[in-house]
Amino acid sequence: MKTQLKHLLTIEQLSNEQIMELINLAEKFKIADQKGEHQKVKQQTFVANLFFETSTRTHKSFEVAEKKLGLETINLNAISSAVQKGESLYDTVLTMDAIGMDAVVIRHSQVEYYQELVASKTINLSIINGGDGSGEHPTQSLLDLMTIYEEFHHFEGLKVAIVGDLKHSRVARSNMKILKRLGADIYFAGPQEWYIAKEFNQFGQFIDLDTMIDQLDVVMFLRVQLERHDPTEFEQISFLEKYGLSNERYAKLKDKAIVMHPCPVNRDVEMGSATIEAPKSRLVAQMANGVFMRMAILKTIFKDKF
Amino acid sequence: MKTQLKHLLTIEQLSNEQIMELINLAEKFKIADQKGEHQKVKQQTFVANLFFETSTRTHKSFEVAEKKLGLETINLNAISSAVQKGESLYDTVLTMDAIGMDAVVIRHSQVEYYQELVASKTINLSIINGGDGSGEHPTQSLLDLMTIYEEFHHFEGLKVAIVGDLKHSRVARSNMKILKRLGADIYFAGPQEWYIAKEFNQFGQFIDLDTMIDQLDVVMFLRVQLERHDPTEFEQISFLEKYGLSNERYAKLKDKAIVMHPCPVNRDVEMGSATIEAPKSRLVAQMANGVFMRMAILKTIFKDKF
Amino acid sequence: MKTQLKHLLTIEQLSNEQIMELINLAEKFKIADQKGEHQKVKQQTFVANLFFETSTRTHKSFEVAEKKLGLETINLNAISSAVQKGESLYDTVLTMDAIGMDAVVIRHSQVEYYQELVASKTINLSIINGGDGSGEHPTQSLLDLMTIYEEFHHFEGLKVAIVGDLKHSRVARSNMKILKRLGADIYFAGPQEWYIAKEFNQFGQFIDLDTMIDQLDVVMFLRVQLERHDPTEFEQISFLEKYGLSNERYAKLKDKAIVMHPCPVNRDVEMGSATIEAPKSRLVAQMANGVFMRMAILKTIFKDKF
Repeated sequence: MKTQLKHLLTIEQLSNEQIMELINLAEKFKIADQKGEHQKVKQQTFVANLFFETSTRTHKSFEVAEKKLGLETINLNAISSAVQKGESLYDTVLTMDAIGMDAVVIRHSQVEYYQELVASKTINLSIINGGDGSGEHPTQSLLDLMTIYEEFHHFEGLKVAIVGDLKHSRVARSNMKILKRLGADIYFAGPQEWYIAKEFNQFGQFIDLDTMIDQLDVVMFLRVQLERHDPTEFEQISFLEKYGLSNERYAKLKDKAIVMHPCPVNRDVEMGSATIEAPKSRLVAQMANGVFMRMAILKTIFKDKF
Repeated sequence: MKTQLKHLLTIEQLSNEQIMELINLAEKFKIADQKGEHQKVKQQTFVANLFFETSTRTHKSFEVAEKKLGLETINLNAISSAVQKGESLYDTVLTMDAIGMDAVVIRHSQVEYYQELVASKTINLSIINGGDGSGEHPTQSLLDLMTIYEEFHHFEGLKVAIVGDLKHSRVARSNMKILKRLGADIYFAGPQEWYIAKEFNQFGQFIDLDTMIDQLDVVMFLRVQLERHDPTEFEQISFLEKYGLSNERYAKLKDKAIVMHPCPVNRDVEMGSATIEAPKSRLVAQMANGVFMRMAILKTIFKDKF
Repeated sequence: MKTQLKHLLTIEQLSNEQIMELINLAEKFKIADQKGEHQKVKQQTFVANLFFETSTRTHKSFEVAEKKLGLETINLNAISSAVQKGESLYDTVLTMDAIGMDAVVIRHSQVEYYQELVASKTINLSIINGGDGSGEHPTQSLLDLMTIYEEFHHFEGLKVAIVGDLKHSRVARSNMKILKRLGADIYFAGPQEWYIAKEFNQFGQFIDLDTMIDQLDVVMFLRVQLERHDPTEFEQISFLEKYGLSNERYAKLKDKAIVMHPCPVNRDVEMGSATIEAPKSRLVAQMANGVFMRMAILKTIFKDKF
């Protein structure tokens, strides 16, 4: 690895070469994992996981990645922490730095929460963005890229559709930017009122999924963030039929097409239950790859300590 | 240990020979513990503790057992996890499998929650039942058996009373089945309305505790699950007097009789405060044995990795 | 270290010599930390962190200290534990002892909660007080002493002001007692209605901060416990102006004076935002020292195991 990162905040901060380095390193970890132990950090190194929004996958995937590299994990449950006493994110991270954390993984509801942290002259630790509001989710994006690359060994010219709750999705935002840069053709689908033309037009075009379903290489569904929608304006039952991966749409996919979803899936909303573990689904692969990609990110940040 | 287990779901799945193997292994761990370090797992191995119902004893006892064996522990607090986003148990365990867990310990309110998990073709990890609703609690049962065996060195012919909230107790269900199979004579006592004759009659007989108190070898009290009873129909104050271990009843116990309780005790409901640390009480021994029995279970599941 | 402690419950239990031993040991850990690894415990040793009140700093600082010494950490989130089933603190600690904890760090809302624990004949583990209600907070006091000693290399004759929410502060209670014993001159300031003359007069005198600000060596601000005050009787806005560290007061401090605060700060209440990371502020140093002081305490308790 040539690169050493101080922070990982957005997917755009990485060059195409750096992305390929991370994918290759993650694949090496994936192979090594089957043989057993990984190379461990040489010096005791602390990572705090600060999740201010609920998460199973991202949080626990990071925790496993940390432990596989021999890093020390400190979990801060924002619900039972001093955050309840009204402490700001800045002061919490200042504390983490003072008590010896070398990095923090943060998920927070505020878009670009990290700006004041990286601007601080006192705070020295590395920041890994585990999701900033409706902003970005760069580690999810990287594991998605790894999963696509495993399948096709290139990005150029791939037809990728991103389908569903575009408006609220940080995964959509990270992925549309980077996939376009890597040469893929991006399509958006789902309810048109969730498509923000002004923001998304520069990255791809809005389509009716049914007109393209048999030409796509990758179909990425997004979680409908039910908690952010007015239940009266949103019918779960018809979503699958109108926009989701019904068995009928699954049957029309190309032979070598793959289906992705950042999970958790609302079963029978974005995807029919039968499609989740179907042969073209890469949902389990995405979760598995997440651990190895996060190991690659952590090793790139702590390059000097291995 | 001849046996290797894939899952531990119920106490009935174990033969009498397997139970004795587990008790003997747990006793070996108990002796080894006094000298210091235990043999550690040879390869990095991950266990997730998924507790969807509150627990101190079972959860922390497993965590200590895992650490004594050198296993990596991942704790998932169901309250702050994606479960809040409506994710099903199946999808949570699928995630745990995908991110590299080798086993999960699960406590869940649904009886036999594990059926769909073990039927899955995708999920490969081992499942250890830490309590399924009012179903079973096999690791509690095994530590109870260990505690009885330590005392009497046999089960055949022991007179064992199970007293109290039979209706809601998974401990009662696990213990009555296995103790009967091991040759003990089972008696049930407590409020008759909590005795489900149809279910329990095949394992033992309902008695008035006072008529038998001086003949019993083991008296197992069950926690009154106050949160599941209508407060108007249940008087805590008179429970101790009518059915619980008052000082008077304690005084009538045989010299070599022992008193058990899965804890937490409602003090002065099931047992008078003075009896909890009294000489015939084995409550502390049960908790201590719980760690060693869970080590035995984990080692039997991960036999290949030691 | 000559001393071995069984428990750390109050600051008064320590002699001046023991305090100096702890400060010196903590400073050794601080120097060693820059070179990398610390000496680890020789035998697997378990510490449970039981926080019944929210805490980031104290809890996580202990957890880091434990990990730097190679101790095994068990975290008990009181919110999701059996405590919810109404279990008493005594029974929770009895459990921790039974399952093999060698020590517990406890924060609890009850003053002197530890009395019944240390009186128990069954409970053997060491107890470290992480804060008892409005009682004491001895580890905070020790890290404060370390921070002062680092600066001045003595305590005799130092002019120390403790400012703010004296009534509710366990930090104030611990610090006034020990600083007086070590020879410092104590002053109290802030709203007079929060000064309990009967309790505090024996340790120092109540002053108007502005009359002394240019003569003080150490100014310790206390967190205003907003959650314990009637909002109608307390105006945050004017607190800073009347009693807090405004920029004007900061400018009047002696060249070698230092400012302290146990954190979290209510920004622009006790201290103006600009003063928190100002040159005379030792807030970050206090947090950093907290880890090394807690390592010193743990090593003194587990002296035999290193």
